[in-house]
Amino acid sequence: MSLKAKALYTFQSENKDEISIQENEELVIFDENSIDGWLQGENSRGERGIFPASYVEIIRPRSNSNLTDCSISPAGSPGNDSSYFPSGSNTSGSFNMQQSYYDDDDDDWDDWDDSSTVVEDEDPHGRGANGHAHQSSFNNPNVHYRAKPHMERQDSISSSRKGSMVGRNLNRFSSFVRSGVEAFVLGDVPMMAKIAESYNIEMGPKGAQWGLSPQPFSCSIEDPTKQTKFKGIKTYISYRVTPSHTARPVYRRYKHFDWLYNRLLHKFTVISVPHLPEKQATGRFEEDFIEKRKRRLILWMDHMTSHPVLSQYEGFEHFLMCADDKQWKLGKRRAEKDEMVGAHFMLTLKIPNEHQDLQDVEERVDTFKAFAKKMDDSVMQLTHVASELVRKHLGGFRKEFQRLGNAFQSISQAFMLDPPYSADALNNAISHTGRTYENIGEMFAEQPKFDLFHMLDKLSLYQGLLSNFPDIIHLQKGAFAKVKESQRMSDEGKMDQDEADGVRKRCRTVGFALQAEMNHFHQRREVDFKDMMQAYLQQQIVFYQRVVQQLERTLHMYDSL
Amino acid sequence: MSLKAKALYTFQSENKDEISIQENEELVIFDENSIDGWLQGENSRGERGIFPASYVEIIRPRSNSNLTDCSISPAGSPGNDSSYFPSGSNTSGSFNMQQSYYDDDDDDWDDWDDSSTVVEDEDPHGRGANGHAHQSSFNNPNVHYRAKPHMERQDSISSSRKGSMVGRNLNRFSSFVRSGVEAFVLGDVPMMAKIAESYNIEMGPKGAQWGLSPQPFSCSIEDPTKQTKFKGIKTYISYRVTPSHTARPVYRRYKHFDWLYNRLLHKFTVISVPHLPEKQATGRFEEDFIEKRKRRLILWMDHMTSHPVLSQYEGFEHFLMCADDKQWKLGKRRAEKDEMVGAHFMLTLKIPNEHQDLQDVEERVDTFKAFAKKMDDSVMQLTHVASELVRKHLGGFRKEFQRLGNAFQSISQAFMLDPPYSADALNNAISHTGRTYENIGEMFAEQPKFDLFHMLDKLSLYQGLLSNFPDIIHLQKGAFAKVKESQRMSDEGKMDQDEADGVRKRCRTVGFALQAEMNHFHQRREVDFKDMMQAYLQQQIVFYQRVVQQLERTLHMYDSL
Repeated sequence: MSLKAKALYTFQSENKDEISIQENEELVIFDENSIDGWLQGENSRGERGIFPASYVEIIRPRSNSNLTDCSISPAGSPGNDSSYFPSGSNTSGSFNMQQSYYDDDDDDWDDWDDSSTVVEDEDPHGRGANGHAHQSSFNNPNVHYRAKPHMERQDSISSSRKGSMVGRNLNRFSSFVRSGVEAFVLGDVPMMAKIAESYNIEMGPKGAQWGLSPQPFSCSIEDPTKQTKFKGIKTYISYRVTPSHTARPVYRRYKHFDWLYNRLLHKFTVISVPHLPEKQATGRFEEDFIEKRKRRLILWMDHMTSHPVLSQYEGFEHFLMCADDKQWKLGKRRAEKDEMVGAHFMLTLKIPNEHQDLQDVEERVDTFKAFAKKMDDSVMQLTHVASELVRKHLGGFRKEFQRLGNAFQSISQAFMLDPPYSADALNNAISHTGRTYENIGEMFAEQPKFDLFHMLDKLSLYQGLLSNFPDIIHLQKGAFAKVKESQRMSDEGKMDQDEADGVRKRCRTVGFALQAEMNHFHQRREVDFKDMMQAYLQQQIVFYQRVVQQLERTLHMYDSL
Repeated sequence: MSLKAKALYTFQSENKDEISIQENEELVIFDENSIDGWLQGENSRGERGIFPASYVEIIRPRSNSNLTDCSISPAGSPGNDSSYFPSGSNTSGSFNMQQSYYDDDDDDWDDWDDSSTVVEDEDPHGRGANGHAHQSSFNNPNVHYRAKPHMERQDSISSSRKGSMVGRNLNRFSSFVRSGVEAFVLGDVPMMAKIAESYNIEMGPKGAQWGLSPQPFSCSIEDPTKQTKFKGIKTYISYRVTPSHTARPVYRRYKHFDWLYNRLLHKFTVISVPHLPEKQATGRFEEDFIEKRKRRLILWMDHMTSHPVLSQYEGFEHFLMCADDKQWKLGKRRAEKDEMVGAHFMLTLKIPNEHQDLQDVEERVDTFKAFAKKMDDSVMQLTHVASELVRKHLGGFRKEFQRLGNAFQSISQAFMLDPPYSADALNNAISHTGRTYENIGEMFAEQPKFDLFHMLDKLSLYQGLLSNFPDIIHLQKGAFAKVKESQRMSDEGKMDQDEADGVRKRCRTVGFALQAEMNHFHQRREVDFKDMMQAYLQQQIVFYQRVVQQLERTLHMYDSL
């Protein structure tokens, strides 16, 4: 059913799927149920696309049998929603790994007393997106649902108070606004009496960096085990999670990781939270999938424990240590009631006194931005090539060597057909050569498990991390704009210099945090890519050495002929 | 112009392209010029196809302006002929090597005072065929001309006299008849006063075998050199041919090989003469083609010198030793006037006195026949697989590794974009890894030169050798039938027992010769395939070792990071 709506505010489209709407413009809505705060419809210029539900009012027809008389109702009320957004042009890329979208584990979430879960999408182009799915009915695996990035941070702006002197961004959906950083920079987030958490930013050899965690640790993820409940009606996989500093294992399911992940997104502004490995529509318990999810959870965990800020998060500690069901629920509720999230998280940061020219920071960020874009592209390229190479290993390479092996066997069979002239030792050797090449074919097919899969795992982690940066960089840009605006207003006498100085000071916090996060990313990147390349080369060497050994053993069979 | 013709004899079609004709049947001829003794036309049942020119008389219209009054002229006179026979169904196979058909060197053959040259076809299915091409005008490389097998041996039956008591095969085109073996078995080939040549067949550990050559030798073929004549208008390739027993090089062109090859076909009944490497329609002087032809001529020569009978042939000696132009022409004419060809060649064979049961020989031949069929199939299969593997090496394998190399380079380029955090040593190592994989891609593309090409060369030789055997086996079958027929006639008193004994005795010669040739084939096959497999494995080992070395060198770059 098509509905009419009126635009309450002007909205400028920023992405391909979005359309711009003007204040007071009349719109057609294709479905009144919003998806993550977005509606799909057509504007007065005939453009079709999505726009924020909160920017419009739906005009209800008078003939409504509903007794209430209100003709205008707020749009975007959550509920079952069967519409979908067509996947953007960025899904038309050549990366061929099938990715379906559905709510993992939602059927057995109820025992955790929590009706919402989060769907994590790994976009083929590394533009990961995270969004709430409300009892999602997206059961068609062919329908790709593209959530808006970082929608889940939206509620963190609830604490912002109106009436600041400096203008607010009209676009309530920019990461700057959603994350609460705008509110923070404008001083709208009140300093709290007692802040238990505190994260230091220090000056290191390459600029600002996160203060090291007082208690660094690592954490293993092992032994994915199929579990059942309700007398075998429901099955799930449990992982043994063992932090190095306690050495006491806890058992966690993917949905626990998922809960933690959403807490992280909720809380940590300015930090690139590693994406969880993607969900899978079918064959959840297939061996390969379980193995792949385990490998990627390990990488995720490594990144978590390596991060000086994320690793110290109380909710993470709870995740890693709590072994008791009742305690788990208590700790879960406590984490969900954490006030130091979003804008308030910014209050927990302690920055150096070091003077930094804002212009310099801006340039440094721009350089990083260009780097991140190119890295994202080349990670994408390598992912594509490596995926194709996996396909070739499993298909073409295996097939070619097996066909060669078959052909040798066939030659040896022919040679056995004229017994008086049949040279058994030679026939054996040729037949063995055939089997050797069949083996080599199998070795090619097996090899990705030892090298390419690990490369793809790491690339996938980096696709996720890189996809967070455009929004994070946007925070700094927004903050910088506020500094300039407030300074201008102060110069014009429209604002106290104190207030303008406050904006500048808080903008420094954003800048230092971003630099620390960039620095951390580079440090990890260097280690991770060195490891990745080394591991790949080592496995490749082992592989080709094994091929050589197989061939040498086979060649020896001809020596005595 | 369509002509009418009358069938002189009944002819039963044996192959797909042939049609049967009945004695006295009226036929339509599409072109009065025969190709290798075959005409194309339509019989009274509307079937279209080819039949032997010598079986029909062309009916010339009375209105012929020609003064001679003969309305019937013998068909099949040689001349320019622009018709073609459609290639048989056996060309629809999957073997994909482009083979075009044209008369190699025919434009510069004239200096040898010989207007005929021989076109050698290597049929994709190993069913090689050889036929005279008379100043062929088959210039369309897309038209495949399928010559009838062993047509060139046809003239060897000229000495057969009519009137033997035992019936002759009606099919003048069976290899049994064409080769002269029928005439020989029936005693129609008169013993000659003085036979200079003599080839022994001995009993060896595995049955009858050719007596060893008194002077075994080998012969190198080296240094293909582009030569020009007529002030550079014509170019050709000259090979340095050096027999081991003289150690004096002679220089030969492909057409000299071709001349020799045709003498061999002409003379040697019951022997599988190795086919010459195929001709090529375009790019005759391209480096790869010259290299390939040289490799295959070397294999051809090895087979020639290894054969106890072929290696002793006077015409071969002339080919290997004559360095003088005038002497060359004399020796050439002498070889062409050799009387001990075809049927007469059978007279040069000395067989053991050993008793052999004809039935046993028959069974032995049948076993060989089944073996040869299976070997032909599996050689074909391996040829196909190896050709495809060459294609993959040049294409898919190279491409995949080069794309991987490019992707690594791209990663390293991205890492250089944020200088303060750029780790030069790591970037260098990654970039070098990229170049390594590009090299490995090139190595894959180069590798067929070192292994698969040599395998394909040898397989091609064996395709040729195997394709000769059905006809050779047919000789023995025909001879055996004659023995049974003559014995029956003798039993019925219609033939002297002496004459029947003569048929049986001469059939023994055919049987021994075939067994000797089978034995020789097996001996060579064993050596050749052992060598082929060893060489392939050795080269494969070297290749994968080089890959390992490249990777190890590259891996070391990460050690110091």
